[in-house]
Amino acid sequence: MVMDKISAMKKLFEPRSIAIIGASKNPSKVGYKILNNIIQVGYSGKIYPINPNADQILGRKVYSSLEDITGEVDMASIVLPAKFVFEALKACAKKNIKVVTIISSGFSEVGNLEEERKINSFAAEHGIRILGPNIFGHYSAKVSLNATFGPTNIPKGNVAIITQSGALGVAMIGKTAVQNIGLSSIISVGNKSDIDEADLVEYLVEQDDTKSILMYIEGIQKGERLVKVLKEATKKKPIVVIKSGRSKRGAIAAASHTGSLAGADEIFDAIMRQCGVLRAENIQQALDWCKYLSTAPIPAGENTVIITNGGGVGVLTTDACEKYNIRLFEDTQYLNDLFSDVTHGFGSTKNPIDLTGEATSAEYEHALDVALKDDKIYSVLALFCETAMIDAESLTSMIRTVYEKYKKNKKPIIFSIFGGEMTERVITDLSKENIPVFRDVYDAVSCLGVSYIQFRHAQVVDGEDRIPKVSINKISTIVDKALSDGREFLLADEGQELLHIAGLSGPKSGIARNIKQAVEIAEDIGYPVVMKVVSRDILHKSDVGGVLLDLDNKEEVLDAYQTIIHNCKAFKSNAVIDGIEVVEQVKLGTEVIIGGRRDKAFGPIIMFGLGGIYVEVMKDVSFRALPVNYRETRLMVEEIKSFPLLLGVRGEPRKDIEKIINTIYRIGYILQNCPRITDIEVNPLMVYEQGNGVKAVDIRVMLSENEGI
Amino acid sequence: MVMDKISAMKKLFEPRSIAIIGASKNPSKVGYKILNNIIQVGYSGKIYPINPNADQILGRKVYSSLEDITGEVDMASIVLPAKFVFEALKACAKKNIKVVTIISSGFSEVGNLEEERKINSFAAEHGIRILGPNIFGHYSAKVSLNATFGPTNIPKGNVAIITQSGALGVAMIGKTAVQNIGLSSIISVGNKSDIDEADLVEYLVEQDDTKSILMYIEGIQKGERLVKVLKEATKKKPIVVIKSGRSKRGAIAAASHTGSLAGADEIFDAIMRQCGVLRAENIQQALDWCKYLSTAPIPAGENTVIITNGGGVGVLTTDACEKYNIRLFEDTQYLNDLFSDVTHGFGSTKNPIDLTGEATSAEYEHALDVALKDDKIYSVLALFCETAMIDAESLTSMIRTVYEKYKKNKKPIIFSIFGGEMTERVITDLSKENIPVFRDVYDAVSCLGVSYIQFRHAQVVDGEDRIPKVSINKISTIVDKALSDGREFLLADEGQELLHIAGLSGPKSGIARNIKQAVEIAEDIGYPVVMKVVSRDILHKSDVGGVLLDLDNKEEVLDAYQTIIHNCKAFKSNAVIDGIEVVEQVKLGTEVIIGGRRDKAFGPIIMFGLGGIYVEVMKDVSFRALPVNYRETRLMVEEIKSFPLLLGVRGEPRKDIEKIINTIYRIGYILQNCPRITDIEVNPLMVYEQGNGVKAVDIRVMLSENEGI
Repeated sequence: MVMDKISAMKKLFEPRSIAIIGASKNPSKVGYKILNNIIQVGYSGKIYPINPNADQILGRKVYSSLEDITGEVDMASIVLPAKFVFEALKACAKKNIKVVTIISSGFSEVGNLEEERKINSFAAEHGIRILGPNIFGHYSAKVSLNATFGPTNIPKGNVAIITQSGALGVAMIGKTAVQNIGLSSIISVGNKSDIDEADLVEYLVEQDDTKSILMYIEGIQKGERLVKVLKEATKKKPIVVIKSGRSKRGAIAAASHTGSLAGADEIFDAIMRQCGVLRAENIQQALDWCKYLSTAPIPAGENTVIITNGGGVGVLTTDACEKYNIRLFEDTQYLNDLFSDVTHGFGSTKNPIDLTGEATSAEYEHALDVALKDDKIYSVLALFCETAMIDAESLTSMIRTVYEKYKKNKKPIIFSIFGGEMTERVITDLSKENIPVFRDVYDAVSCLGVSYIQFRHAQVVDGEDRIPKVSINKISTIVDKALSDGREFLLADEGQELLHIAGLSGPKSGIARNIKQAVEIAEDIGYPVVMKVVSRDILHKSDVGGVLLDLDNKEEVLDAYQTIIHNCKAFKSNAVIDGIEVVEQVKLGTEVIIGGRRDKAFGPIIMFGLGGIYVEVMKDVSFRALPVNYRETRLMVEEIKSFPLLLGVRGEPRKDIEKIINTIYRIGYILQNCPRITDIEVNPLMVYEQGNGVKAVDIRVMLSENEGI
Repeated sequence: MVMDKISAMKKLFEPRSIAIIGASKNPSKVGYKILNNIIQVGYSGKIYPINPNADQILGRKVYSSLEDITGEVDMASIVLPAKFVFEALKACAKKNIKVVTIISSGFSEVGNLEEERKINSFAAEHGIRILGPNIFGHYSAKVSLNATFGPTNIPKGNVAIITQSGALGVAMIGKTAVQNIGLSSIISVGNKSDIDEADLVEYLVEQDDTKSILMYIEGIQKGERLVKVLKEATKKKPIVVIKSGRSKRGAIAAASHTGSLAGADEIFDAIMRQCGVLRAENIQQALDWCKYLSTAPIPAGENTVIITNGGGVGVLTTDACEKYNIRLFEDTQYLNDLFSDVTHGFGSTKNPIDLTGEATSAEYEHALDVALKDDKIYSVLALFCETAMIDAESLTSMIRTVYEKYKKNKKPIIFSIFGGEMTERVITDLSKENIPVFRDVYDAVSCLGVSYIQFRHAQVVDGEDRIPKVSINKISTIVDKALSDGREFLLADEGQELLHIAGLSGPKSGIARNIKQAVEIAEDIGYPVVMKVVSRDILHKSDVGGVLLDLDNKEEVLDAYQTIIHNCKAFKSNAVIDGIEVVEQVKLGTEVIIGGRRDKAFGPIIMFGLGGIYVEVMKDVSFRALPVNYRETRLMVEEIKSFPLLLGVRGEPRKDIEKIINTIYRIGYILQNCPRITDIEVNPLMVYEQGNGVKAVDIRVMLSENEGI
């Protein structure tokens, strides 16, 4: 009996009443601080402090147990030592409370998994949603509920923060207050035993007060659902993520070959991009982005114009634009016609538009008017170096006027001011009004950059989703057979069959059970051929001499047969040899690798890269979480650095890129829909000239009885 | 009669007297502002305002001309309109003034090159050094001289700023004041008609007041000298550079193939690294670094330890350490022995050392004591998330105490504090005292990162400089001949001779003047051979069918001879064909490219990369300015991403890396010492297994009558 999620979430964010189980008289205790915060901040609902040993705390009536409360209780916050939490939860169930936050620590984070699981199962059985344990609480501006033991001063606003780190979260409350960043909510998710980022984001994107969401993430458990939620959520609101553990130390151990190709952070990074989530490097950047995005429009096109009063800062900004992938308007003639009236003698109408150090406030405003009214210009970066020509008051009022005048026309305008005292005053005043004014051009440009990521992401997301003609049932039959044989991998012929079902072409082949058959098959295929042992006891066939290439005639096939049997028996005398596969030796082409596997964090993911050293040495690969649509699959191929090799360099012809995309798409579709397949690797996929297709030279498929991983 | 540089520079930074030619009564004029700044800031020397139409300005006696001054004048500052500057300079020469700053604009920056050149030649003839024109002036704390028209409030300190941008420079004065960054000097270099960064750095590294130098550079003219100066200067003081124009728009047009391999910014970047100059991305970062480096010691070893009261911020910092290449101390057992007494129950003695949110100020201090006293730990990052356990006062005093106690022991310690109001107070107070306290861990870690760049650079700089046995005279003879033939390139046989002189091995070859000779040479070399046309009229031989490969016997050589002649005549009927070169077809190996050329900005530079797509598609190349020592040449080979291919991957043997280094070193030596060679490209250099050497398959040498470029 799981409750409707949104309604449980509504009780978390807009409870009409809250019980604090473990409210305390002792000001040094968390049970006191939370109650105190709730009261001080002016929560609009009913407050029920629970403590069997107190009558009054902070002037409020204290209840000795939940049973004593006559009214309904929408949520409870438990601040008892770990060992008393389960009992308290049982009482919550009795009182029919559907959302409980467990502030207490002492659970899985210190190895006490059992207690956490017990609590969790009980809660699930009784339809109770749990936030925590091991959290500092949560704040919801809507009902002025500060059920945290952090600071009381939280300015209301439109940024929602979800944090996995307690200390950082509490400190972020202070930071946002200092920087005039208003919050709609801040939620500490702690051990995420039940409620996680996915649940919260799903609710927050529908909540009017929240205009942008910041997530601080350390680790991901239910990544597959998170990806699904994020893909939808970013269509509605900007989401910024900081993920710590970028470094190797934090990378998860990846079991299969595919996983070892790149650290887990590259996968996280790729998937967040795929979801349209904006990844910040550090907290300050994340806060800047969230503040900016909570008010800023998404641009309606490229063609950014820079307006400046200093050449140097203009060039620096041009550099920053390249870094953050902002495309500057480059129609010199058009710009000259537009701006020649507003620039001084030594100024420039080339982008950056340089008004020179002589520019007055009025001239600045005029130039901005021209830019912001123009139909071909979709965003403006306005730079200012402190000069004697403009004082703080006129600059502040000019910026305010321009910002207010144009803020409704969906054209981003960002200001960057560089200088001393005067600059500080202007920035301090304007940022209180949520006008985007920055101290450093790189900060300003990075904000516009994320707006453009949003803009461009919106062009890709709704790619058509062709369902390939692949019989998942037939593949399941192969998988059934292998698993019932006690194998966790497919044999070569089964792999070939899977390729066939998938509509993908592999080399011609047959299994020879004796030396005579080997020759027959080889003659049938045509020379040269490759021969490979088929044995459940030998997984790394090449390493033991179980694979021989370049067999050009009957004699060589005869020799090869005997050599392979000899080598395999030498490796493992009792190895069961099911036969020798004789395979067409495919002609050379450009080798690419397609690998899919179930990631511990994200579920099914797919990887693409050029074969050999491109993947292994240059780490030139792309990743996506499944499912991917066709358009996104194309991006996956196009974004690798070695893509020009597929387009054809140095006189080489263009390769059959469409067929690569088609293969990735189908392999992804199979992995997505066959939950008992844990890994599929096509390595190499031989790619020929455009029109000549591709050939899957080898396919390795790993299985597991347990669906997923 | 060029004056001794240092002494001229001393007059710029410590003049005993200054004349302001063009001093004005009008407060809106630059000629007023500069005089006013000089007086207000309290310049300790004599001030001579010059203006034929005024008696007094700002209460000072005004001279109608330099001639009226009886005393000696150490320097003059000219603030007249461009057209009067030359006359004023002549007067300076008469008065025997040796340093003149030309504030005035209207010269090369607006296309008026002629006037600037005229001034420059006159100054050079008379031993006068010029700063400018087109500058806002300069400030020197030593004599309290603010000869700028920027702000008057410049706190004295130890950072020197050299800026090519006026507007940015003036704004930087304000910025440094706001951020408590004291300056020893700030110099606007403007058009750099004479004095440039090299001159200033050369002086500033010897000046006691200056502890770190910041350069804002837009373009480089005399790069070769700058490189030479910077290489020496960074051994004495940290130098930070911001170079704008990173983006493609700003990249200089590169004429030769080598130059087109990577944008000019990659070259700048590589050369600055080679010089030990620290490149900041933006102004804030540059200022942070300069402030930090002006007081911080260079660490004596790796093994950084992070001490934190929050796990999340600890992980973020670990990430930042990877980004900025800081190596964390990883001896878990050692760390556990060291820190087990100072961490709480739930804390961690693994690096980051986590004191948990419960840590008090005293416990923090204790942990820092332990770290800073330990012999194996060479630097410490101390992190703090705002908690209720520590208030601003105790935190401030703890940090101050620890910093003061250990600042003399040459072990960097950097603090990063994250939070709200309290954090702001702590940071504001401590940064006034030049204690390195940051708001964001990435900023803190980047500072430690540049310290480690310095530390590591010091290990490389003084590599031995073996002079290779290469006769520059013999090479000059070849160059002479080619140039006197009217050619700006070497013919194939000349290229081979150059390789021979350089002690490098190319394929065996000979020039056939007729078809019979071709066969003789081929038989002599042994098959297979390659045949190539030798013609001054055909530069791109392959493109016109002038090269044929894989010639396995006499018949094929005979055919090839005729085919090549036919193809070349078809391409250009009157092409002069000097012969056909018959060349050993070298056996395949790993192809690398070595390219040297004279860069417009930096003079002779050298490039290395793996052949083919690694250079062209993956842009995987390394650069250095010449000369490079042997150790630095090794780094050049090791730093490319595809280096593992030379080490041997996938069962391949290690390649002859020593021989590659030797070849780069020799090619560099030749380019460096033969000024009429503009480009040398060895492409490909075939590299074999370790011990089996390398072979220069093709060499292209371009020449110019004019030395340098």
